[in-house]
Amino acid sequence: MKVAVCPGSFDPITSGHLDVIERGAYLFEKVVVGVFEKTEKNPLFSLDERIGFIESAIKENSKLSNVEVESFNSLLIDFAHRHKACAIIKGLRAVSDFEHEFQMAQFNRKLDKSIETIFVMASPKYAYLSSSAVKEIAKFGGCIEGLVTKEVEKGFRKVFKL
Amino acid sequence: MKVAVCPGSFDPITSGHLDVIERGAYLFEKVVVGVFEKTEKNPLFSLDERIGFIESAIKENSKLSNVEVESFNSLLIDFAHRHKACAIIKGLRAVSDFEHEFQMAQFNRKLDKSIETIFVMASPKYAYLSSSAVKEIAKFGGCIEGLVTKEVEKGFRKVFKL
Amino acid sequence: MKVAVCPGSFDPITSGHLDVIERGAYLFEKVVVGVFEKTEKNPLFSLDERIGFIESAIKENSKLSNVEVESFNSLLIDFAHRHKACAIIKGLRAVSDFEHEFQMAQFNRKLDKSIETIFVMASPKYAYLSSSAVKEIAKFGGCIEGLVTKEVEKGFRKVFKL
Amino acid sequence: MKVAVCPGSFDPITSGHLDVIERGAYLFEKVVVGVFEKTEKNPLFSLDERIGFIESAIKENSKLSNVEVESFNSLLIDFAHRHKACAIIKGLRAVSDFEHEFQMAQFNRKLDKSIETIFVMASPKYAYLSSSAVKEIAKFGGCIEGLVTKEVEKGFRKVFKL
Amino acid sequence: MKVAVCPGSFDPITSGHLDVIERGAYLFEKVVVGVFEKTEKNPLFSLDERIGFIESAIKENSKLSNVEVESFNSLLIDFAHRHKACAIIKGLRAVSDFEHEFQMAQFNRKLDKSIETIFVMASPKYAYLSSSAVKEIAKFGGCIEGLVTKEVEKGFRKVFKL
Amino acid sequence: MKVAVCPGSFDPITSGHLDVIERGAYLFEKVVVGVFEKTEKNPLFSLDERIGFIESAIKENSKLSNVEVESFNSLLIDFAHRHKACAIIKGLRAVSDFEHEFQMAQFNRKLDKSIETIFVMASPKYAYLSSSAVKEIAKFGGCIEGLVTKEVEKGFRKVFKL
Repeated sequence: MKVAVCPGSFDPITSGHLDVIERGAYLFEKVVVGVFEKTEKNPLFSLDERIGFIESAIKENSKLSNVEVESFNSLLIDFAHRHKACAIIKGLRAVSDFEHEFQMAQFNRKLDKSIETIFVMASPKYAYLSSSAVKEIAKFGGCIEGLVTKEVEKGFRKVFKL
Repeated sequence: MKVAVCPGSFDPITSGHLDVIERGAYLFEKVVVGVFEKTEKNPLFSLDERIGFIESAIKENSKLSNVEVESFNSLLIDFAHRHKACAIIKGLRAVSDFEHEFQMAQFNRKLDKSIETIFVMASPKYAYLSSSAVKEIAKFGGCIEGLVTKEVEKGFRKVFKL
Repeated sequence: MKVAVCPGSFDPITSGHLDVIERGAYLFEKVVVGVFEKTEKNPLFSLDERIGFIESAIKENSKLSNVEVESFNSLLIDFAHRHKACAIIKGLRAVSDFEHEFQMAQFNRKLDKSIETIFVMASPKYAYLSSSAVKEIAKFGGCIEGLVTKEVEKGFRKVFKL
Repeated sequence: MKVAVCPGSFDPITSGHLDVIERGAYLFEKVVVGVFEKTEKNPLFSLDERIGFIESAIKENSKLSNVEVESFNSLLIDFAHRHKACAIIKGLRAVSDFEHEFQMAQFNRKLDKSIETIFVMASPKYAYLSSSAVKEIAKFGGCIEGLVTKEVEKGFRKVFKL
Repeated sequence: MKVAVCPGSFDPITSGHLDVIERGAYLFEKVVVGVFEKTEKNPLFSLDERIGFIESAIKENSKLSNVEVESFNSLLIDFAHRHKACAIIKGLRAVSDFEHEFQMAQFNRKLDKSIETIFVMASPKYAYLSSSAVKEIAKFGGCIEGLVTKEVEKGFRKVFKL
Repeated sequence: MKVAVCPGSFDPITSGHLDVIERGAYLFEKVVVGVFEKTEKNPLFSLDERIGFIESAIKENSKLSNVEVESFNSLLIDFAHRHKACAIIKGLRAVSDFEHEFQMAQFNRKLDKSIETIFVMASPKYAYLSSSAVKEIAKFGGCIEGLVTKEVEKGFRKVFKL
């Protein structure tokens, strides 16, 4: 069975992330979404909340029936190895994404040649979307409908007391 | 069976192309290399020669046993559709590649949502490699060993009477 | 009255071009679309056809009531000067656009400091759109609905005898 | 009356910022410079100082007679809306600017379609200029003449006790 | 003696090229400007004219006293080798320059490890300058003063019968 | 004697840095590696450790016999001036490097016209390599052999108690 992993901080998951995961679920027999336990900056949502948002998004979308979620606190390549994955899936939006991802992909290949990083293009309508942009808008009470799931909208209301 | 197509002019096929095709062959059950019959500029090698180079490269490499070659003279998306492919595989080397490929991928998605374009990173040692660079060097008698197969080296010697 | 010019080959005009022109018409009191008489490559459509497509697009869209079309065969800056324009409007889609346009803008500023080049972002749904991509698809009989106006679709059917 | 806003942290305002604001003042009937009250990092200058530097720069330059300054602590799009602006003006220097600004522009368009982000090219002589680079040089006592106004030079001397 | 070569089509040499050559002449004991005999497109000026423009520019600038000119019709690396050069000097203006030059540099390193490609940054005031842009402007009678030498200006007047 | 400086935080020095320094040592009569005393973030290794790693790397490689190390806490251009350097050497890996370095180079040229910034291309096999990537991998116990010297490997084992 061809398995792929799709890693990220997902603080919180956006419609752009879900778009990429759905493409992975179409190409592979199983996709494991890997949530970094520790992120560089202080995450807005706890690890449990971040995983919860992804789990409820999977339940609501029949195209994600072969998708699972799991947190990890190790090198990505070790996480991929544990799941017997042949691929890491990443979404590309822009040139700056591209360069950073290129470096990561080369590094991971050096660490383990049996796991290939593949890139899919995010839908243009999500090209401008990132977790940090959504947080910025939500903080000021701007409209984020369609950019995140209903569950994440609720999460923001709770955190920002909107 | 998950099938992917890998399109190009392949005038001629380089070690960089073969690197990308090999990664595709690892990820999918079948890869069909699609050779554009008509290229924008006058190709140096005939369609038969270009296909021949690829066929002999496949024969020599056991990792390419699930790879086939076929020429086409239509929209890429129609070629992919004919082969029941779920994916188009492209190699990325640089930012300029990225932008052009991004536009093509969005266009193909508009034409047929059931076929996904995926990108793999070429090995850094082939990052500088292109068919046109190889032709330029071969024309002036420079050393192209390792950049192309032995068959392609022979082809150059014949064309440039080296 | 603040006037801007919007230059191009428009072979043919696409929905992406019209998106940019509409933004210009919103910002300025008058926009003059300037069609290059001579383009580098052989254009698919004649100068009259290219102008005709733009004129009919203007007629059909009430947001373009302050837009005019005119061909020119001179430096862009002289065309802008003739129309007493204070600005040249260009659409940006990608990094490669950006760099080329940056050079043009600096050059035009050197030639005439009183005319400013301004850039607007094309809508993401047209980010992948270019005249040459549309021509490529139309040539092979692919669907170009929504990418160009009905008049241009007719033009393609005539040229390619579809 | 066509109004535009020009947002930033301006910690402190540089000759490059003033170059962009001057171009805006030429294109629009009124330009409102919007100073973010809270910036991501600790600003070197207080909000009052940052606004004061801009106000004195406006007074000294007759081309900026239609420019005003105001701080804000909200979404940019709400600030623009309050001023009945039809446009947000940003300067572009480099590819990395371009990508980030592109994302912001798409986001702001989603939030309010009636406000257009437009980009002007900074003069090449200011292409390398940024508030953070100026701060770095001033900190070590390097020469910043011409890169900022006399008032800002004075501000640096006070802060760094030069 | 440390020798460097500086290659190009120089059709014609611009103030931007001379800026780069001058930087090379400062860093190395000798610089050999190499003029490609055959360029991809039809050059506007003959090989003799292109060399003549460079020779007269060298004579007029005392900072170029250690610079020579020579045409070549071989791989660049062979030209560099013949002159016992340790370096190839190239000017960088923009990201698209960078990528292409990167590929060329890697290729030349593969062909001969003893010759290093080094890059210097063109002055910002020449960042927008290229031979093709100058030709375009001169063709339409635009002002090119300061962008090329007086000799080149004369050459344009002769060719375009201005 | 032509002298060049090669600046950085070197926290710690990688095989990519050494590759660039070696190229500088080939082109110039002397290279002074300048280690920033204070770096933006908290460095993992102390200034003494960072310098020690470089010194032992120089001792082990005969191609680096004309290389020295020194720390500095001033503007780079002043450090270069103190060493009577005619050049600053930087390695380029990617587009994002390029843009940042371009800004720095222009700034340094403004501060002192007699010191030229030159760029060399890192070897493709180190294109993905950075101090921060190595630290990330070492932290999780991943294999960093070949990416840093043996001394640095030891340093990591000590710091991370591996």
